[in-house]
Amino acid sequence: MDTGRANSIEIDIERLWRDLDASALIGPGRAGGLRRLALTDEDKAMRDVFVAWCESAGCQVRVDAVGNIFARRGGLDDTLPAILIGSHLDTQIAGGRYDGILGVLAGLEIIRTLNDHGVVTRRPIELVTWTNEEGVRFQPPMMGSGAFTGAHDVAWVHAQLDDDRKIFAEELSRIGYLRSAQPLPEHYDSYFELHIEQGETLDAEGLHVGIVTGGFRTFGTELRVTGENAHSGPTPMRRRSNALVGASLLIARLNDIGWTFEPEGRTTCSRLLIEPNRYGIIPHSAKLTVDMRHPDDEKAREMYQEFLDFVPLAARKANVGIEIAKEWSFGDVVFDSRLINLVRSVAADLGVSHRHLLSAASHDAYNVAKVIPTVMIFTPCREGISHNEKEHIEPSYTAPGVNVLLNAVLRRANA
Amino acid sequence: MDTGRANSIEIDIERLWRDLDASALIGPGRAGGLRRLALTDEDKAMRDVFVAWCESAGCQVRVDAVGNIFARRGGLDDTLPAILIGSHLDTQIAGGRYDGILGVLAGLEIIRTLNDHGVVTRRPIELVTWTNEEGVRFQPPMMGSGAFTGAHDVAWVHAQLDDDRKIFAEELSRIGYLRSAQPLPEHYDSYFELHIEQGETLDAEGLHVGIVTGGFRTFGTELRVTGENAHSGPTPMRRRSNALVGASLLIARLNDIGWTFEPEGRTTCSRLLIEPNRYGIIPHSAKLTVDMRHPDDEKAREMYQEFLDFVPLAARKANVGIEIAKEWSFGDVVFDSRLINLVRSVAADLGVSHRHLLSAASHDAYNVAKVIPTVMIFTPCREGISHNEKEHIEPSYTAPGVNVLLNAVLRRANA
Repeated sequence: MDTGRANSIEIDIERLWRDLDASALIGPGRAGGLRRLALTDEDKAMRDVFVAWCESAGCQVRVDAVGNIFARRGGLDDTLPAILIGSHLDTQIAGGRYDGILGVLAGLEIIRTLNDHGVVTRRPIELVTWTNEEGVRFQPPMMGSGAFTGAHDVAWVHAQLDDDRKIFAEELSRIGYLRSAQPLPEHYDSYFELHIEQGETLDAEGLHVGIVTGGFRTFGTELRVTGENAHSGPTPMRRRSNALVGASLLIARLNDIGWTFEPEGRTTCSRLLIEPNRYGIIPHSAKLTVDMRHPDDEKAREMYQEFLDFVPLAARKANVGIEIAKEWSFGDVVFDSRLINLVRSVAADLGVSHRHLLSAASHDAYNVAKVIPTVMIFTPCREGISHNEKEHIEPSYTAPGVNVLLNAVLRRANA
Repeated sequence: MDTGRANSIEIDIERLWRDLDASALIGPGRAGGLRRLALTDEDKAMRDVFVAWCESAGCQVRVDAVGNIFARRGGLDDTLPAILIGSHLDTQIAGGRYDGILGVLAGLEIIRTLNDHGVVTRRPIELVTWTNEEGVRFQPPMMGSGAFTGAHDVAWVHAQLDDDRKIFAEELSRIGYLRSAQPLPEHYDSYFELHIEQGETLDAEGLHVGIVTGGFRTFGTELRVTGENAHSGPTPMRRRSNALVGASLLIARLNDIGWTFEPEGRTTCSRLLIEPNRYGIIPHSAKLTVDMRHPDDEKAREMYQEFLDFVPLAARKANVGIEIAKEWSFGDVVFDSRLINLVRSVAADLGVSHRHLLSAASHDAYNVAKVIPTVMIFTPCREGISHNEKEHIEPSYTAPGVNVLLNAVLRRANA
């Protein structure tokens, strides 16, 4: 029996790449990327393939009430809390081929590599794919991990609606992934998530691994602007209450705030719904979703406050009502220092170039870190392009990160 | 035989109001107004009722290839060009009960009044209702009158698509109003259109009739803003190409231009389509429809030029491409001076308070005026509110205008 302590084993990057290429056939986008939204037929097809691959690798598969899939490889002592490795299979609406699934298939590749080498770890190892990380079809994002960690009530998740008013639970049941397994945080020793960086730091600096120490502090809000319908011709400016003007003033100001806090600050409105949005009629309603991010908590708060201070000015200038309908924040996560040190020492031992990074994106790991010691490993993506069909990575700059993950998992699983 | 030269006859305002109330049952909105979009089931129901009413009034009904309905009351000499009276039956998406249909039913009431008094006019009189005046479902607006006057080719109109990619000709055929009558401009002596003002002048000044001498000069454009998808977290401001920011800068500037040219200048973006418009992804596309209006042609051009001058600045600031996809203009219409004088002298003879006005809205009369001598009569609407379900008029401030129309039509029909 080999417990793999020698740190000599390596994943098979060609096998991993064959799986990535095969997965990219499921839910193809228009421009070489993917459109595989949560709980669609494409999501089902990808889940079915993933489950088949896990079973072929000898894993035992369970699915919980929100569709999170857990695939278990037993250890020497199956009573010990397991190592959990995961990410997500869903994509953005015009997303890339690697965002999410790389972390899931890297975990699968690790299990296959352990199988190939006949390694049995002390602790069991589980793979997980979290439901609806992207939050494209159902909001909020990171829904599956939020239900697992108790941030969201399962019944609340089940009741969420998409834009066509389809119900989460019915869609999950329709694709066959509404089950009853009940994995609990206390069943796990630690959580590892490998993900493409979705930023340009590693690519620009020519490094192979980013060890994520935490997240950009992010404040988000959904605003509802209320105006009044009127005819766009005869209605003089002073008689108007134009919801779209109110929204546009907010978006322009939000953009200026981002520039003021450059290069680390970022501000975005990614979603604006206008009613009635028809020629000739002044819009009476606009709903917008915005967020502000900065690595420094205090700066992020300052950005958010500047935005909030502008809200009444925009309301006055556009003669509209503006209400803050929802507020949220994330990124106040602290990853586990022992796991961070473990990953750093593995990278050093393997001679893999690395640095510490903050994540500007949000990840399931933020939820999981609240209940299980967690660390994230970033691998480079070309020019930092992501949430774009042009997202691109290469085997040569991905393999080192997956090997660091493998050996970090191995050390922890045998500790 | 009474030729009605005595100017003594009056319409039955209660009968007209009963018809208006009955019509408001077809396509009710959410808040007391109407939603009766062109070529929908509601449009069909309203057309069927209108045709039945016209036939009951002894008219002969014909429908042309774009669904315009013509209802004819014969004259003493049916070889003479007819008087045409009309407007439209379709509404805005959250429209009022009177915009359009008042002008159509006022014409019907005039025919009934002539019938009641046994008046036979020298010239025939025809009612018309033009298809798709509002342009809500199919663009551009004023489509039916545009086809009648030759501004649009019938085949082009037939090929237009709504947002669900339904085809105009198929929808027209589906509701049973794709026919083959071929009324020509040369069959008509003059065109009268009565419409609510959709502005506040008559209501504020306590006047009963506005004699429309022309339109606000209007320049419109559809712009396409092209950016690039990216992740809203990791992508720094300087790496972004955010189509929604480009659009918002344009809308904010457009609004400022309107205020600069207050009170007569008006600027509006009434429609903004964003792609993909999903949480977490920077939008790559925005299409917006804007217009600028001013009674003074030169000032309207100045407003439009200020906007066009800003387009490259917005493109630079948001780091996006902005293309002008369509441009149009209207309001350079001149109504017929003899008809304007006729309406004024009738109003004076009847003792109806009146003034000259420009129309800030667009009307089928703009199209018709290019090929037939045309005049428009405005009647008051409360606080100028229109394209809003709260649009409101009263019999007491509508009847004088309809009586002016009746007697102007009568004089012209007997001239």
